[in-house]
Amino acid sequence: MTSTLTPAGEFERAREEYAALKALRLRLDLTRGKPSPEQLDLSDGLLALPGKRRHAADGTDVRNYGGLAGLTELREIFAELLQVPVPQLIAAGNSSLELMHDCLVHALLGVLPGASSRWVDQGTVKFLCPVPGYDRHFALCERFGIEMLPVPMDAGGPDMDAVERLAATDPAVKGIWCVPRYSNPSGVTYAPPTVARLAAMPTAAPDFRIFWDNAYAVHHLTDRPAELADLLAACAASGHPDRALVFGSTSKITAAGSGVAFFGASPANVAWLLGHSAKRSIGPDKVNQLRHALLLRDAEGVRAHMERQRALLRPKFDAVQRCLRDGLGGTGLATWSDPDGGYFVTLEVPDGCAKEVVRRAADAGIALTPAGATHPYGDDPRDAVIRIAPSYPSLPELEQALRGLAVCVRLVGYGHRPPHTRERTGGALPDRAAPARTAGIMKPSLGRA
Amino acid sequence: MTSTLTPAGEFERAREEYAALKALRLRLDLTRGKPSPEQLDLSDGLLALPGKRRHAADGTDVRNYGGLAGLTELREIFAELLQVPVPQLIAAGNSSLELMHDCLVHALLGVLPGASSRWVDQGTVKFLCPVPGYDRHFALCERFGIEMLPVPMDAGGPDMDAVERLAATDPAVKGIWCVPRYSNPSGVTYAPPTVARLAAMPTAAPDFRIFWDNAYAVHHLTDRPAELADLLAACAASGHPDRALVFGSTSKITAAGSGVAFFGASPANVAWLLGHSAKRSIGPDKVNQLRHALLLRDAEGVRAHMERQRALLRPKFDAVQRCLRDGLGGTGLATWSDPDGGYFVTLEVPDGCAKEVVRRAADAGIALTPAGATHPYGDDPRDAVIRIAPSYPSLPELEQALRGLAVCVRLVGYGHRPPHTRERTGGALPDRAAPARTAGIMKPSLGRA
Repeated sequence: MTSTLTPAGEFERAREEYAALKALRLRLDLTRGKPSPEQLDLSDGLLALPGKRRHAADGTDVRNYGGLAGLTELREIFAELLQVPVPQLIAAGNSSLELMHDCLVHALLGVLPGASSRWVDQGTVKFLCPVPGYDRHFALCERFGIEMLPVPMDAGGPDMDAVERLAATDPAVKGIWCVPRYSNPSGVTYAPPTVARLAAMPTAAPDFRIFWDNAYAVHHLTDRPAELADLLAACAASGHPDRALVFGSTSKITAAGSGVAFFGASPANVAWLLGHSAKRSIGPDKVNQLRHALLLRDAEGVRAHMERQRALLRPKFDAVQRCLRDGLGGTGLATWSDPDGGYFVTLEVPDGCAKEVVRRAADAGIALTPAGATHPYGDDPRDAVIRIAPSYPSLPELEQALRGLAVCVRLVGYGHRPPHTRERTGGALPDRAAPARTAGIMKPSLGRA
Repeated sequence: MTSTLTPAGEFERAREEYAALKALRLRLDLTRGKPSPEQLDLSDGLLALPGKRRHAADGTDVRNYGGLAGLTELREIFAELLQVPVPQLIAAGNSSLELMHDCLVHALLGVLPGASSRWVDQGTVKFLCPVPGYDRHFALCERFGIEMLPVPMDAGGPDMDAVERLAATDPAVKGIWCVPRYSNPSGVTYAPPTVARLAAMPTAAPDFRIFWDNAYAVHHLTDRPAELADLLAACAASGHPDRALVFGSTSKITAAGSGVAFFGASPANVAWLLGHSAKRSIGPDKVNQLRHALLLRDAEGVRAHMERQRALLRPKFDAVQRCLRDGLGGTGLATWSDPDGGYFVTLEVPDGCAKEVVRRAADAGIALTPAGATHPYGDDPRDAVIRIAPSYPSLPELEQALRGLAVCVRLVGYGHRPPHTRERTGGALPDRAAPARTAGIMKPSLGRA
């Protein structure tokens, strides 16, 4: 959309469009990365499995207790996909978030390999948090009183100069959250040099851990997925075998909530987690693991399954690009990501506008993830980042929501005078091309606006 | 078995029988309370469920994220059976042990309703442990550095005079482990006055909790199950609504490992657990919960199902009584429980003999739960209690194992000179009828020997 209107004229037009939008009384939801019913249908084979089967390949009766590490045949399928050798990969319950939570718990209340004592006995614990990032990671830190240090993301992952400096100098820095492929929400895939530096960097804490949440390992939207280097191997090669904790799940492969989660790490870390897990559980749901092994068959089966997921998701991500371009292209009010995979599109609006855009959208019946959720403590200091989750709504609903969102961005953006420029510039629009502002997430795949 | 042999003659005969036993090269396992394959077959309907069903009664797509409290229709089935109102009952993952673990974690790292601070910030934390008890409870305490105070069990549950004294005087005493019905391993069901006293007693800790592990709530071996009073209601009526944490699961109803676990408590405790769970998980496996609701239908369906379980288990528990009577009756060497439900028989041998009996049995190919496992820190001060788990082996295997066990008890018992009597009495057998020795678990249902 290009226009010859003055900013004041644009604002007036946006006001009219917003009034019309509210009159539609929409009820649309772009808040969470939930699969759509059509995506879930792809795995409905699970609902009648394992059928007559009662035994795993090794003869284990899957209905009984035991088998803490999970079924070997399922671990064999995901070992390649998650870049973890089978003996170092655990198949667990229905949620990788649980595994991350429990690793924090066991590090707080137990002694990690390489640690001198429990984290609860070490005073302040800090984690590096690449931003924008995943709100549930941040919520875990907040819940356990772990101090969060934001680190900006760029096109190849977190700003490694900042990461290396913080990790090397502060022994309270015990870890970093990473969603290495199709990062939530920016869509960035960590570049090989980033992975190498994460594996090799000196850390002041001997028990530093990389929480490698590979949630979107096989969730491509393109034929040519970017390479993701093998962190576990890189850590071992760098003399830091215990640094990487790899997490994954089938939640967005098969069924969200009734999938299988995975944990991969060094033998010492695996023994550590299994030792603690053995106190907590007599074993995971092996019937569900057999169900998944029967449905997916092998790594190639997972890839074929993900092609069917992509056929459902790609049109939605295309629609996001189209609607944002139509509604915001040429306005100078927004940039957005165009990811090659994952579940999210990140929209950046003028500084100080994100919360207001989300509020306006909510008033018009369009629910968005709260602004700020992409940052520790819910505090986006620029108040500029909005996460869009396009997977769940139908295509027409999604388009309607995105068109409405664009109206809200124009309404707020044209009406907005950034606090720090209000007096100085008389209300000029923030300059979205300024390097200081675009040095973050927008580099990898700028919206074509 | 009665005998006219002298103890020395009995010992010689036992030696010969033990040699013959070892020659059989048995490989039998009585270690854990695992359901047999035939018991698991009773729930094989689960393996093809939910079939075409994708939605819960309220329209929820069970395949997607969410629903942290679990499916209402399943909670409705178990509310009556676990004596917890539906709104206060959570249906969770596949293990109630996990829920107990996590309640300890959240109490250690969060602030319980009624607590002034996190338990990790309060120094020593102690739990009362009725003995004999469940080794996995004790393992959780040990893992978290919670000091365990043993309390003897009697015919109506724990010695309440001791419980009341310890709870009232020591603010570090934060909780008590209870398996209130068919207690593991003694088979005792807590008497109504015991439940009333637990609910009403003053506690020095304002955040005292009863971990009410009602694992065998519906696992009767008799037509006339003893009444178990409603702890949650009693606590509320006594002005201590937050004192009770109720746990249960279908692990020994449907499938061990792929069942559903439950948590019931006061509204404040439920909100507390859900608040912490919301950080850890986006919801339980609702497909499995629907599967269970479809198989079991209602509380009456569960009771009918448990009748089928009983038909398989009762002959095994009868065989235990028969074999112990045949092998040990009249010897003065042992007493044992004859429970009305649950999964275990407790065998008491002469003081100082349990470890040796278990070792001799292992050498003859009969695996038993380690002696001492029924006590905190694996330390049975009398070294007298052996737990027998009859559910898993086939009936002929079970009989063979029990006959072999009786041989081991005779071998060790007749050969044994208790350290404290060795010099004094010249090796007289411990007097099993002495009140100080039998004041514990044997009262409720003495073996008919």
